[in-house]
Amino acid sequence: MNTDELAELGQQLRVDSVRASAAAGSGHPTSSMSAADLLAVLLAHHLRYDFERPEHPANDRFVLSKGHASPLLYAAYKAAGAIEDGELVTFRKIGSRLEGHPTPRRLPWVETATGSLGQGLPVGVGIALAGKRLDRTGYRVWVLCGDSELAEGSVWEAAEHAGYENLDNLIAIVDVNRLGQRGPTRHGHDLDAYARRFQAFGWHTVEIDGHDVDAIDRAYGEALSTTGQPTVILARTLKGKGVAAVEDREGLHGKPLPEAEEAIAELGGPRDLTVRVSEPQAAAALRSLTTEVVQLPRYDEGDEVATRDAFGKALAALGTARGDVVALDGEVGDSTRTEEFAKEHPDRFFECYIAEQQLVATAVGMAARGWVPYASTFAAFLTRAHDFVRMASISGSGLNLVGSHAGVAIGQDGPSQMGLEDLAMFRSVYGSTVLYPCDANQTARLVAAMAGLDGIRYLRTSRGKTPVIYGPDEEFPVGGSKTLRSGEDDRLTVVAAGATVPEALAAADRLAADGIRVRVIDLYSVKPVDAETLHRAAEETGCLLTVEDHHPEGGLGDAVAEAFGDGRPVPRLVRLAVRTMPGSAAPDEQLHAAGIDATGIAAAARLLVEEAVVR
Amino acid sequence: MNTDELAELGQQLRVDSVRASAAAGSGHPTSSMSAADLLAVLLAHHLRYDFERPEHPANDRFVLSKGHASPLLYAAYKAAGAIEDGELVTFRKIGSRLEGHPTPRRLPWVETATGSLGQGLPVGVGIALAGKRLDRTGYRVWVLCGDSELAEGSVWEAAEHAGYENLDNLIAIVDVNRLGQRGPTRHGHDLDAYARRFQAFGWHTVEIDGHDVDAIDRAYGEALSTTGQPTVILARTLKGKGVAAVEDREGLHGKPLPEAEEAIAELGGPRDLTVRVSEPQAAAALRSLTTEVVQLPRYDEGDEVATRDAFGKALAALGTARGDVVALDGEVGDSTRTEEFAKEHPDRFFECYIAEQQLVATAVGMAARGWVPYASTFAAFLTRAHDFVRMASISGSGLNLVGSHAGVAIGQDGPSQMGLEDLAMFRSVYGSTVLYPCDANQTARLVAAMAGLDGIRYLRTSRGKTPVIYGPDEEFPVGGSKTLRSGEDDRLTVVAAGATVPEALAAADRLAADGIRVRVIDLYSVKPVDAETLHRAAEETGCLLTVEDHHPEGGLGDAVAEAFGDGRPVPRLVRLAVRTMPGSAAPDEQLHAAGIDATGIAAAARLLVEEAVVR
Repeated sequence: MNTDELAELGQQLRVDSVRASAAAGSGHPTSSMSAADLLAVLLAHHLRYDFERPEHPANDRFVLSKGHASPLLYAAYKAAGAIEDGELVTFRKIGSRLEGHPTPRRLPWVETATGSLGQGLPVGVGIALAGKRLDRTGYRVWVLCGDSELAEGSVWEAAEHAGYENLDNLIAIVDVNRLGQRGPTRHGHDLDAYARRFQAFGWHTVEIDGHDVDAIDRAYGEALSTTGQPTVILARTLKGKGVAAVEDREGLHGKPLPEAEEAIAELGGPRDLTVRVSEPQAAAALRSLTTEVVQLPRYDEGDEVATRDAFGKALAALGTARGDVVALDGEVGDSTRTEEFAKEHPDRFFECYIAEQQLVATAVGMAARGWVPYASTFAAFLTRAHDFVRMASISGSGLNLVGSHAGVAIGQDGPSQMGLEDLAMFRSVYGSTVLYPCDANQTARLVAAMAGLDGIRYLRTSRGKTPVIYGPDEEFPVGGSKTLRSGEDDRLTVVAAGATVPEALAAADRLAADGIRVRVIDLYSVKPVDAETLHRAAEETGCLLTVEDHHPEGGLGDAVAEAFGDGRPVPRLVRLAVRTMPGSAAPDEQLHAAGIDATGIAAAARLLVEEAVVR
Repeated sequence: MNTDELAELGQQLRVDSVRASAAAGSGHPTSSMSAADLLAVLLAHHLRYDFERPEHPANDRFVLSKGHASPLLYAAYKAAGAIEDGELVTFRKIGSRLEGHPTPRRLPWVETATGSLGQGLPVGVGIALAGKRLDRTGYRVWVLCGDSELAEGSVWEAAEHAGYENLDNLIAIVDVNRLGQRGPTRHGHDLDAYARRFQAFGWHTVEIDGHDVDAIDRAYGEALSTTGQPTVILARTLKGKGVAAVEDREGLHGKPLPEAEEAIAELGGPRDLTVRVSEPQAAAALRSLTTEVVQLPRYDEGDEVATRDAFGKALAALGTARGDVVALDGEVGDSTRTEEFAKEHPDRFFECYIAEQQLVATAVGMAARGWVPYASTFAAFLTRAHDFVRMASISGSGLNLVGSHAGVAIGQDGPSQMGLEDLAMFRSVYGSTVLYPCDANQTARLVAAMAGLDGIRYLRTSRGKTPVIYGPDEEFPVGGSKTLRSGEDDRLTVVAAGATVPEALAAADRLAADGIRVRVIDLYSVKPVDAETLHRAAEETGCLLTVEDHHPEGGLGDAVAEAFGDGRPVPRLVRLAVRTMPGSAAPDEQLHAAGIDATGIAAAARLLVEEAVVR
């Protein structure tokens, strides 16, 4: 396309953005109009993408980090012939694929759900890293960012990661339209301010007028010829460009244009240009799938092994059996034990340093390219990436997240290092699976099982050693549980998981010595929960006593209560959990102080029996 | 102190760090040893602090961002005469104030809990901002950072914020010891790499040998004489400095020295130097306390008002009545309605741009200085700051956090903008309060009530208008509820909050028309929950049907279940919640699709009654 044609295409994208938003009665046309020329030139001259085959291994990848500019994206899909005009005007309506913010659950050409700012670039870094070190099919990753979102720290985690990894297949395009939602950004049109920041993190920078299609064209060319470092194109633009009533004006964020028909006329009216987007080069996916049966580590009953150790060894074994498994860590691989994987499969291990948002974003990017990521850090620090996990669930991303050092059982390090909210966080994620093993063989099995699930899978591991109570051939279906003590005289049921299972067993033994029989259930699958076994325990014992190394809200106690959330008769429920703020102390002192050790469990059970709360 | 004395003091801090860790059998002596000279010079020559009066308004503020170097901090307290040697060796033992990571809940000289890396500098920015714009007593804020934590994006949110706000009362000291937990950092001893980054964000930088006490002394002087911008001192150091067996060696992070006695001898043996820390200048707190009775906005029953609107107006009114209230926003004040406060009290409003971690960290810093912050953004985006909220609860920080745009009720914007996990997140925070009002008068009352509570207070507001159902003089105690429909024939109880309250009322009316009476409870206080009213409803109606615009886990349903977690008989429990991934649709379509509108509630109630699940 020549200059005029490119400009015309830009105008068409503006017109269609205005039309879609007008039809919806909401949306972000002005944020779309600022970036229209940037996307027009990309689509017409530089993107290599087969819209018929979004899974093509050599397709370039485009991420709309400023997800609210979805009208522009959908207008571009129309220009590329991927969607019809009739679908365009279903924007934001119930049942439409064209949501307010794009998501790959709906549209095959979307790499990752955006709409929470500052996430597109981090995920783009993950895809670009997959491109350089895993897929190696020559694709480039284009990320269109807003200027407002550069205030997010996650953008600078991404900038650091990309610069350090020399990701010259990554091109960030920043639509510097100077206006955020509420008003001007910190740096307005000061492109140099942004350039200094990116340069400091090792990026090549190009500053242009974002409405000069030839300048845009040259900038993309420069980016593609830049080697050894990622490029950011800083484009000076005007929000609402092309319509005088809204151009460069405050107070118009996220609103349809007041006079859509006039605006469309001012933009030169509707057009129906179709762009022939370049095809990617022929390529085959390098990714090897499962090649052999996984040889999980096997532990002898009675041994003492930390579940984090079993996780590390099982992950390494899984990596040997499956060529599509990758591991990532937040610079604590010696603690989480991903170092076991790193040693055996250094080419598929990714050190993300102390940047948990980028850790999860890298995993999301790799999952988008078909890899099976296991990302790990302390359970407590996964809270840092909560919003990324939330958005990953909207993407429908398949992630394995493993949080170590769960609960007060870690001991002396104190509350800052203790995961005490992680079960609540992961249970509340849409479609998630939450697993909390108590022994090494169980851990190994669950690590392997996770890989085959959909959505966000979370595994919680423990720092200290716990006794191996299951044989290496025992199976642990997701959604199941293990009844470890059971009899006809059970007065109540203790429901435990992870670190509290050995405590529950010890409590049961002590109580049995006093003639009080209790059932013990190992609820290793916290979500989905084994409702059937819990229902039976409720019917047979009448009272469930949950014991968890977690705050009382959102964890095991709530999971058990939820199993009775369908109107059936509910047993008496009692929950033991961490109800005070812990300090530093030895692991056994911590469990005791929280009332979740064998002594606490036995005392609670005795009280319930003696006060005749239970039969 | 002269050069030799400063060096001696540094050695004493090393020896005491080694001793404390040896006594504990755990801890981070090597990370303490690298920064010992930096802290020695600060303590002896530059810090202005009255350890007898930690609340002194002109005290400098010191934040140990690398919280794992707590032995160094405690050794410094000993050198300053604040603690005895006998207490030093209680480090990390049960009951000791000297936890593995420092926290203000235990020690009066600690500003904020650290131990989750990358949080000290952001909180320091909040304190420095309070110093410049609120307290104005001339204090300086010193933050000692590790080099590993510079990978956290939150550090660059802080750098951006501090540079933009010209915080020349803020001095960051980076202990560049080149070794993280697992191994070398990205940039090793390349001080220039860090300098480029900080300079790009507008900081003055100084690069020094962090073991040259005279160079340290000069660098602090240079920082104090720098105006108009914050200063970072990048200090090249060696981890484990002073003990050959551990100095600059990998694999020794977080471990006591192998041969403590020999190490102490190598460091020249124990010393007993005492430092006379400079006194702060005389100053009085400018902070004005409550000056008048708050004149909350009043709404007429039957009007339609969004709770976010009521929040904005109530906050502005609270700001008029109380001089200690400050408001902060993440660049969405026109949506959250903090703009109401900003208009009336611009000197106490803080724009934090799209950087939610820094938003919460700024609030934590201001709360540490005695201010009463209200920080607001979309409920969905508060997940971005989860780890900061978690750490704030460890600090015992008094924060008001307000999340708008809760639930599917926001409509067309789609799931990325919907808070559907926020109740779970905030309920699981230790000592938190979680409030979810349904009308404007209730919102206004709760906004005022929050200010007087301890710990983390969360208020959830809605985007769309809801009917005003309470009079302006109605009271809403925290921990209470309102029973809106009640009779002797109630077949079950619908428990709702926020957006589902009007739906529950409409459902009750429809059911009543068919002769089915149901009780309706407005459970505006989700935590603490009004157990007494729920217990009575359980006894009298036998079945509780919870309805929430939130995922089924961790929210209202779990809160209600928890009220029966003490072993008492439990009613039948049924929960309606958002169980599918929403797309874009109108608000009423969203509520309907999720089954939480009046139709869904009535259908569920009818089913329970007809199937004789309930009496």
